[in-house]
Amino acid sequence: MPQNASRAAGRHFLQIPGPTPLPDRVLRAMDTPIIDHRGPEFAKLGKRCLEGIKTIFKTANPVIIYTATGTGAWEAALVNTLSPGDRVLMVETGQFATQWKTMAQKLGLKTEFIPGNWRTGAEPAKIEEHLRKDKAHEIKAVCVLHNETATGCLSPISSIRKAIDAAGHPALFMVDTISSLASTDYRHDEWGVDVTVGGAQKGLMLPPGMSFNAISDKALTAAKTSKLTKSFWAWDEMLTMNKVGFFPYTPATQMLQGLAVSIEMLHEEGLDNVFVRHARFAGATRGGVGGWGLEIIGRPPKFFAPTFTGVLLPDGHDSDAFRSLALDTFNISYGASFGPYAKKYFRIGHLGDINDGWLMGVLASTEMSLGLAGIPHKKGGVQAAMDYIVSAHSSGARAAAE
Amino acid sequence: MPQNASRAAGRHFLQIPGPTPLPDRVLRAMDTPIIDHRGPEFAKLGKRCLEGIKTIFKTANPVIIYTATGTGAWEAALVNTLSPGDRVLMVETGQFATQWKTMAQKLGLKTEFIPGNWRTGAEPAKIEEHLRKDKAHEIKAVCVLHNETATGCLSPISSIRKAIDAAGHPALFMVDTISSLASTDYRHDEWGVDVTVGGAQKGLMLPPGMSFNAISDKALTAAKTSKLTKSFWAWDEMLTMNKVGFFPYTPATQMLQGLAVSIEMLHEEGLDNVFVRHARFAGATRGGVGGWGLEIIGRPPKFFAPTFTGVLLPDGHDSDAFRSLALDTFNISYGASFGPYAKKYFRIGHLGDINDGWLMGVLASTEMSLGLAGIPHKKGGVQAAMDYIVSAHSSGARAAAE
Amino acid sequence: MPQNASRAAGRHFLQIPGPTPLPDRVLRAMDTPIIDHRGPEFAKLGKRCLEGIKTIFKTANPVIIYTATGTGAWEAALVNTLSPGDRVLMVETGQFATQWKTMAQKLGLKTEFIPGNWRTGAEPAKIEEHLRKDKAHEIKAVCVLHNETATGCLSPISSIRKAIDAAGHPALFMVDTISSLASTDYRHDEWGVDVTVGGAQKGLMLPPGMSFNAISDKALTAAKTSKLTKSFWAWDEMLTMNKVGFFPYTPATQMLQGLAVSIEMLHEEGLDNVFVRHARFAGATRGGVGGWGLEIIGRPPKFFAPTFTGVLLPDGHDSDAFRSLALDTFNISYGASFGPYAKKYFRIGHLGDINDGWLMGVLASTEMSLGLAGIPHKKGGVQAAMDYIVSAHSSGARAAAE
Amino acid sequence: MPQNASRAAGRHFLQIPGPTPLPDRVLRAMDTPIIDHRGPEFAKLGKRCLEGIKTIFKTANPVIIYTATGTGAWEAALVNTLSPGDRVLMVETGQFATQWKTMAQKLGLKTEFIPGNWRTGAEPAKIEEHLRKDKAHEIKAVCVLHNETATGCLSPISSIRKAIDAAGHPALFMVDTISSLASTDYRHDEWGVDVTVGGAQKGLMLPPGMSFNAISDKALTAAKTSKLTKSFWAWDEMLTMNKVGFFPYTPATQMLQGLAVSIEMLHEEGLDNVFVRHARFAGATRGGVGGWGLEIIGRPPKFFAPTFTGVLLPDGHDSDAFRSLALDTFNISYGASFGPYAKKYFRIGHLGDINDGWLMGVLASTEMSLGLAGIPHKKGGVQAAMDYIVSAHSSGARAAAE
Repeated sequence: MPQNASRAAGRHFLQIPGPTPLPDRVLRAMDTPIIDHRGPEFAKLGKRCLEGIKTIFKTANPVIIYTATGTGAWEAALVNTLSPGDRVLMVETGQFATQWKTMAQKLGLKTEFIPGNWRTGAEPAKIEEHLRKDKAHEIKAVCVLHNETATGCLSPISSIRKAIDAAGHPALFMVDTISSLASTDYRHDEWGVDVTVGGAQKGLMLPPGMSFNAISDKALTAAKTSKLTKSFWAWDEMLTMNKVGFFPYTPATQMLQGLAVSIEMLHEEGLDNVFVRHARFAGATRGGVGGWGLEIIGRPPKFFAPTFTGVLLPDGHDSDAFRSLALDTFNISYGASFGPYAKKYFRIGHLGDINDGWLMGVLASTEMSLGLAGIPHKKGGVQAAMDYIVSAHSSGARAAAE
Repeated sequence: MPQNASRAAGRHFLQIPGPTPLPDRVLRAMDTPIIDHRGPEFAKLGKRCLEGIKTIFKTANPVIIYTATGTGAWEAALVNTLSPGDRVLMVETGQFATQWKTMAQKLGLKTEFIPGNWRTGAEPAKIEEHLRKDKAHEIKAVCVLHNETATGCLSPISSIRKAIDAAGHPALFMVDTISSLASTDYRHDEWGVDVTVGGAQKGLMLPPGMSFNAISDKALTAAKTSKLTKSFWAWDEMLTMNKVGFFPYTPATQMLQGLAVSIEMLHEEGLDNVFVRHARFAGATRGGVGGWGLEIIGRPPKFFAPTFTGVLLPDGHDSDAFRSLALDTFNISYGASFGPYAKKYFRIGHLGDINDGWLMGVLASTEMSLGLAGIPHKKGGVQAAMDYIVSAHSSGARAAAE
Repeated sequence: MPQNASRAAGRHFLQIPGPTPLPDRVLRAMDTPIIDHRGPEFAKLGKRCLEGIKTIFKTANPVIIYTATGTGAWEAALVNTLSPGDRVLMVETGQFATQWKTMAQKLGLKTEFIPGNWRTGAEPAKIEEHLRKDKAHEIKAVCVLHNETATGCLSPISSIRKAIDAAGHPALFMVDTISSLASTDYRHDEWGVDVTVGGAQKGLMLPPGMSFNAISDKALTAAKTSKLTKSFWAWDEMLTMNKVGFFPYTPATQMLQGLAVSIEMLHEEGLDNVFVRHARFAGATRGGVGGWGLEIIGRPPKFFAPTFTGVLLPDGHDSDAFRSLALDTFNISYGASFGPYAKKYFRIGHLGDINDGWLMGVLASTEMSLGLAGIPHKKGGVQAAMDYIVSAHSSGARAAAE
Repeated sequence: MPQNASRAAGRHFLQIPGPTPLPDRVLRAMDTPIIDHRGPEFAKLGKRCLEGIKTIFKTANPVIIYTATGTGAWEAALVNTLSPGDRVLMVETGQFATQWKTMAQKLGLKTEFIPGNWRTGAEPAKIEEHLRKDKAHEIKAVCVLHNETATGCLSPISSIRKAIDAAGHPALFMVDTISSLASTDYRHDEWGVDVTVGGAQKGLMLPPGMSFNAISDKALTAAKTSKLTKSFWAWDEMLTMNKVGFFPYTPATQMLQGLAVSIEMLHEEGLDNVFVRHARFAGATRGGVGGWGLEIIGRPPKFFAPTFTGVLLPDGHDSDAFRSLALDTFNISYGASFGPYAKKYFRIGHLGDINDGWLMGVLASTEMSLGLAGIPHKKGGVQAAMDYIVSAHSSGARAAAE
C-alpha cells in the first residue's frame, strides 16, 4: 500500500496453507447469539455436526470434536491409544512430522523416525520394511501425515495401509489430514485408518479452534488399555455425551454453528466436485510455477500436494523478503518455509473456498511480485495457468456433453 | 459451477460498474443494533456523516443526503431549482444521460439535447456554442454526466464550467457523478458546479439506497424561486434539521453507519491514493483489452472512464451470451450494454474496494471466458495488464525514493 | 451509565414506535456480499420479496417497493393518483396526519381536514357526513392513518370503508399503515383500500430505508389520468420491471435481502400469532400504566394502539427530561411527544421482534425511572403487567387444551 | 411460543451462568476476514491480547492463552507444575470442584478433599488446619474455586492465601475463576495466587473456546521440575513465542479478535464499575428471591455469588420441569442443578453484558413462570428487585453529588 496510507485497499489474499479465506456464510453462521449448550436447540446442532462430520472423514464410526487446534488432536490420538514407553513409527516428511514426533517423545513414547529429505512423502515400501523387522510387534502405532503441511507432499495412505498389512503388523495406523481433509479424497474406513487427525481451518473453511479424531473400532479397543494419562483429551466421556448431541465440557458453540454450515456447503458443491476443483487449482499452479521456470520443493510429481505448492526461489534470493514485498505491495500472504529449506521457498495455498478467478489473482500477484523483487524468472506463468484452466473446463464440458 | 452442484465456490466477482464489492468493514458497521434517530448518539453519527461527505465532494457547502438511489437525487436536483417549462440543456452521452433527459421531461421541463453517438463524452465547445445562441438566457440549467455509466466516457467538468463562463451564460451547472465520485478527482466548489448528484453504491463502497445533492450558494438561491412541486425531495427542511445532525424524516440509519465508515476508509487510504489506484486499474484494463486485440467502446482516449471499461466484441458475438457463460463458469458479473450497442459490448467494472490482484483475477476470468466462448482474440491481455501494474509500481517506488 | 464510564453495559432498549429492535437474523441477512441487481440470483430475490410482501398487506394486487422511507411512499400515493388542484379529505388525528396534509398542499392538492384533538382516531361517521356534503364528488381521495404514530390511536379502517360506501362516494381511499402493518390485522383487499402506505422499520423489523404502496385496480385506473408530475415515484415503470423480478433503478439490494427474511420470519411465527402477541403486549402495557395511576394519551379505549402507548405525565413534569434520565440510567429510548402535548407525554413502543420478558424489562425500566425522577405514581405497574401476561398465557393454554 | 409457530419471537434470555449473552461488538469483531497468524498484523493483535489480559487478572506476569475451554486450563495448571503422585488439597464446594478433583486423579495425582455440603464456599480455617498437619510438606498444591459454578458460592481467596501462609506451608495456590473473572474483583498478584485458571465465556463476554493460566514466578519455577507429561499444554513454548506476539500452534484467531475487543469494552466501562454493576444485579436478584419467599442454595450470605443465584424450589417441584416451561413460554434458559440437589434448584445467571432492564426482564420471566407452573411463591419479587435497583442508583447519585 502507498507509504502515506494507513489502509490497504481490497480484500486480503490469504494464501497460506490454512487458515483459508473464510466464506461469508460460515462467518455469518458464527455471528449469531449464543445458545444454551445444555438446551434442546443445542442438541439439534450437536447431532447435526456429529453426524455431518462423519461424511467428511468417510467413516461410519464416531468422530470426536475437540475445542483445540490440530496440535491438540495429535496429542489426543496418542494419549487415548498408547502407553508410556510404547514404540511408534513415524516418517520424516518435514517440519510437521518432526513436531508430531517431538510431541510423542514429550508424552513418553519411544519414536522411530524413517529419515527423509523434507521434499518427498512417505514411501510404503520403507514402512513395510521397517515393520517387518519388528517381529515382536513392539511398535504400537504407525503415524503419517497425509499431506506434509511444511512442504506439500502427499503420501499414499491407501498404499501404506497395504504395506502395513503386507508386513502382517498389528500396529495402529494414525494419519494427520490437517492440510488435506475436505480438499482431496480421503476415506477413513475404506483405507483402514485407526485414528485420523483433522483440523477445522483448512478444507473445512472454518477459523482455527477445532480439531478432530476419527476413530476405528480397533482404536477404541486400544483405548481401553491405554495407560498414558489423559483427561481433557479422553475419548470415553466424549463418546457418552455425544450420543445425545452434547459434550462433557462447554463446547465451542460458535465453531459448531460454523461447522454445521461448512459441511452443508461442501455437500451443496458436492465432495467430488470439491476435489476436482482443488486438483484443477493445483494443476494450474504447477503450470504457473513451470511457466516461471521455477522449481517446486515437493517431488517427484506423485507426491505433489493438491492444496498448496511450495516454490523454491533461485539461490541467493530470500523467500521471507519476497513474502514481505508481496504483502506490502499486493496484500497477499504466503506460507513460510522450514528447516533445511528455510528462506529458500514459499508456499502458495490454493485450498478452501476460492475459485478460478481468485487463483489467477494469486498467481498474477506472485508473478508481479517476482518482477518487482527482481527475482529471475520467465514471464508466462499466469498464461500457462490460464491455459490449464481453460483446458480443464473444456474437457469438463466435453465430458458432460458426451 | 458444475452441473451437479447447487453452490458456486469462492467469492463472486461483482464487476458491474456499481454496486461495487462491499468491504467487510462497511458491512459490519451496518450490522449493528439500530439506534434512536432522535437521540444523542444519532446526532453524533449524523454530524459525522454530514461533515464527512463534504470532503468527498470537496465542498464547504452543505450536502443533502437522501434515502433513495441516484435516480432520486437526479429528481431532487431538478425540482429544487427549476420551474415548470424551464429549458435545460443536456448532452446525449448515452443511456443514463437519456434517462435523465426523460425524467426532466416528465417533470415538466423543456429539454434540449446535444446529440451524441453514445461513444464519447460531452464536448465543452459544443456546450458553449449552444449557450451562446441562447441570448435571452432562457436555458436555466446545463446537466452533464461526469461519467456516462452506460459506456464509460468521462466528460471534462472543469472545462465545461469554463465553456459556460466563456458563453457568459447564467445557467445552473448540474453534474451527475454517480459512477465517478470517490474514484477519480472531483471538485464541486473549485469547478463551480451548482448541484452535484452522487450515489452511495460505487466509489463510496456502500449498498445502494443513498444518494446526494451537493449544492452551491447559487443553487440555494435558485431554490427560493423554484416552482416545481416537491416535498420528499425539498432541500429546505433537510438543511434546517441537518444543522443539529438530524433529518426531517426517519433516515436510513444503517446506511449512515456505513457511510461514516466508508468516508473514514477513503481518508485512511488517502483520496489521492484512491484516485491513483483507480487510474492504475483503468490503465491495466485498457492494456488488457488492447492485448486481446479488442476495442473499447468509449473513445478517443481523452474520454476513457477511470472506473470501468466497455469492451466491444467482434461482430456476430452476443455480449449477453458471453456474460452468461462467464457468470456460470467463473462466478463473475459484468455490466450490460445499452441502446444502439446493446449486446455488442460488456462493461468491466474496476472500481471500489479492490486491489491489483483482484483486478488480475477479473481480467484473467475475462480472458479465459473469451477462450471458452470461442470469441476471436489474442492471448496476452493479462500479461499486458501485469506489465502495466508492475511498471506503475516501479515508477511509484522510484518516485518515492527520489 | 456511571459518570466515569465511556460505555453503557448491555443491550439498548429501543422502545420508540419504530424503528424497532432489529432481529439478528435480519441483520445477518443484510450482512452479505452484494449481488448484481440485473442477474439471475437477484431475479429470484426480487420475486420472493414482491410475492411475499403481498401476504403482509393481504392483497392479490402488486405492491410497489420504494427505496425511501415512509414519507416517500406518502408522496407516491398522492402523485400517482391525483392531479393538481384535486381536493383530498384528511383527518387530524395528530402530528403525522398533519404532516401528510402539509405534503399534499405542497404537491398542489387542496386539503380538507376534519379537525381533531390529537387524542382520538378517525370517526367513520364524520367522514361519511363530510363526504355526503360533497355531492359533486370533487373530493378525489380520503386519506387516513391506520395508526397515528404521534400518539397511538388506531382508526377503524373497515368501518371507514363502509362509511365511504354509505355516502356513495367514489373517492379513492388511502391508508397509512406505517406504525401498524405486520403488528395488527390489516386487509388491503378485503377492506377495500385503494392505496396502502407502509414502511419497513416497524412491524417488518427492518432498518428504515424502504416503503410500500399496495394498490387496488381502482387506483391503477386513476393513475392513468393522474396529472401530478412524477418520475422517481411513478408506478408504471415499476410494475413493468417487477414482473420479472427487477426494478427500473438500482434497488436497495441489502434491504431486499432483509425483507425476504423478515417476511419468512413473520410466517414462521404465524401472522395471527404476531397479532396476538402485540395485543398481549399492548394489554400488559396499559395494565402497567393503570397500575402507576397514569393516563394514556389516546382515548377512549376503542382507539388504543396495539403497537405503542403514549403515557401522560402529571402536570409540571417534563417528559423530555424524563426520557433523558431513563436513557442515561437504564439505556432505554422512548418516543417523543408532539404538538399541543409536547413534553407532556412519552411513547413506549411495544412492537417488533420482542417478547414478554423484554417488555417487562421495558416496563420495569419505566417504573424505576419514574421513581428516580420523582414523578408521582403508584408502584405496581409492572406487577399488573405481569398479572396480565400470566393470565393471557393461562387462557391461551386452556384454549389450546380444550 | 405458540404451538402453531415454528419461531419464538424476540431475543433469547441466556441466563445460564455462562456462556453469557454475547455483545454485538464482540460478535462483529469476530466476524472479520481471517488474517495470517504469522504475519505483522497478527503480531499486533497478539500483543494487544497478551498485554490486555494481564489487566483483567491483575498481574504483571504472563498469562497463557489456550485454545480450549476451561477444563483444558484446569489440566494445564496441574500438568505444568506437578509430578506423578504429588498430593494436592482441594475443597468440595460442589460439582465443579469435584470434577477438578477427578481430573487430578486421572492425571496421576493424589487428591485430598476437604468435605463440603455443596452449599458453602471454602473455609480458610479448615484449609489452614489441614495444611498444618502436613508437616512434611508433601502437599504440593492447594486448589480452590473462587466461585463454585454449580451452586454459586464465592470463596475468600485473599483469606485462604493468609491461611496458607499462617500454616507456613509452601504449597502452590491454584484458583479457578471461571465464573467470577471480570465480574467481581480478583487480584492474581496481590492475593498471592500461583496459577489462576480463567475462561472466556463468562465475564469476558466471549464464546467458549478460550481459557487462561495466569502464573506466578513460583509457579514458573515449579514448572521447571514438574514431571507430569505435557505437550499441548506446556507453558514453555507458549512463553517463548508470546514474547513476539505469536503462538507455537495456530491460535484461534477469531477468538483473539473478540478478546481484544472485550478487554477494551471492560476498560471503557471501567473494571470497578463492572464489579459494582454485577454486585447490584446480585443484590436485586437476591431481593427478588426473598420477595418470592424462596431459598437460595448458597449460604450463608458471606458466600453469595456475584454472578448467578441458585434458587431452591419448594419440595416436590422439579426444577428441570420448571426450566422447560420457562424456556417454552418465555424464551429463557436457566442453569441446571447438580449432585445431591439435582432437580431441586435452578441457577439464574446475572453476569456478562446485561443491564438493569434486562435483569428485570429475567426476574419478571421467572416470577411469571413460577405463576404459570403453579409453584407456591409470593408475588413481589420483581417489586423488591426494582426497589433495590432504584435505591442503588439513588445512593450512587448521592455519592457522586457529595
